[in-house]
Amino acid sequence: MKLIDKNSRIPLYLQLMDILIDRMENELGENGQLPSEREICEHYDVSRTTVRQAINELERDGFIYKVHGKGTFVAPKRVEQNLIKFYSFTEEMKKLGKVPVSKVFSFDIIEADRKIAEKLSLPAGSRVYQFSRLRLADNIPMMFETSFVPYDLFPGMTKEDLESTALYDIFKNRFQTTIVMAEELFMPVMTGVKEMELLQMSPSIPSLRIERFTHGEDRLIEYTNTIARGDKFKYHVRLEN
Amino acid sequence: MKLIDKNSRIPLYLQLMDILIDRMENELGENGQLPSEREICEHYDVSRTTVRQAINELERDGFIYKVHGKGTFVAPKRVEQNLIKFYSFTEEMKKLGKVPVSKVFSFDIIEADRKIAEKLSLPAGSRVYQFSRLRLADNIPMMFETSFVPYDLFPGMTKEDLESTALYDIFKNRFQTTIVMAEELFMPVMTGVKEMELLQMSPSIPSLRIERFTHGEDRLIEYTNTIARGDKFKYHVRLEN
Repeated sequence: MKLIDKNSRIPLYLQLMDILIDRMENELGENGQLPSEREICEHYDVSRTTVRQAINELERDGFIYKVHGKGTFVAPKRVEQNLIKFYSFTEEMKKLGKVPVSKVFSFDIIEADRKIAEKLSLPAGSRVYQFSRLRLADNIPMMFETSFVPYDLFPGMTKEDLESTALYDIFKNRFQTTIVMAEELFMPVMTGVKEMELLQMSPSIPSLRIERFTHGEDRLIEYTNTIARGDKFKYHVRLEN
Repeated sequence: MKLIDKNSRIPLYLQLMDILIDRMENELGENGQLPSEREICEHYDVSRTTVRQAINELERDGFIYKVHGKGTFVAPKRVEQNLIKFYSFTEEMKKLGKVPVSKVFSFDIIEADRKIAEKLSLPAGSRVYQFSRLRLADNIPMMFETSFVPYDLFPGMTKEDLESTALYDIFKNRFQTTIVMAEELFMPVMTGVKEMELLQMSPSIPSLRIERFTHGEDRLIEYTNTIARGDKFKYHVRLEN
């Protein structure tokens, strides 16, 4: 068993984090319960402050989560999303052996306001679909998306279509529309109250906001604003020199 | 001037956000002060709840920031970082016409603990440099980095070297070490107390944690853990289909 080395130059809380990560991986497993702060203090002979600092860092890094009145638990591992080629939530979750589900929360045909029209390079007032979807993997809510799609390119799409078929399959199979590439913009955000409820998140966890601009052969065919749970994903890029 | 349309299907707070973004861009400018909540209520004839919701969303999206006792101000635009090829903070800020500065907070030669050794694919106990740097652009703190670099590849590096020369220039010019590529992992995190102080951030703003693994011709030459201000950056990727 690893022990704290009080003569080391490595701060005690970092040593403790390292030990706890080791135990979580090898002994406790996903959703396993951590010992109490007091037990950790006694077991490793460190101060309450050190334990709190280690626990706070672990929570912040998404290794653990707290359940009010119950204790502290090992967070399930994050899904690693490669940002190297075009991906769809449905396909990515299937690759991981998870069952993807989309719940369509709203589905409307609207006139694009200036902001949305600009995002899709359309004249303001153009007809667009606006739909919101909650995406789940193995029944766990993972992200909440609001999408805007030009109506004229994909006439006659219904809420039922979206509930039964992946959006990109509708584009490809029903409308013979090829996706050339997508651009995405990422930024960390505080999770809004609505998204926190829908995604069943604890309040201290931020999200990643992802804007996706999907390009067809000669036009933008989708603008989606996604709130992805900050504790469920990590994103991977490869930067060639 | 744009007005609220109470018969529209677009929620009032979204319309108000759109109007306020318009005013911020065309009239108030970066760091310009927004009218008070009361003034916005009266001017656009909407409820306090609507104004609060719009203001909260704008703050969450990083459009505005609050200064306690002073009011609400237009946030400077985010720096857009392309994640398409290898980049350095110094070079990117210069391209934007900003003056990059690095403050070296700590500089040590340590024995890698298990976690750091694994990150760099080294045996535990290997000697590595560990240094922390605060990166500023035009005197504004942008990110805080903690880096680990194998000692044997770059013997004799000093704190003064890092203060005067960009790390990648030291690698290249003094040690003839070529960077082949880097991998980065991204996740949104709550900003820790220490980073919040160093980066002069308001407490409600999350950060992006970025882990960088820099590959030389046959070995990993750098592992860096960065906390980047969530209100200062957006990241751009291009996903080919």
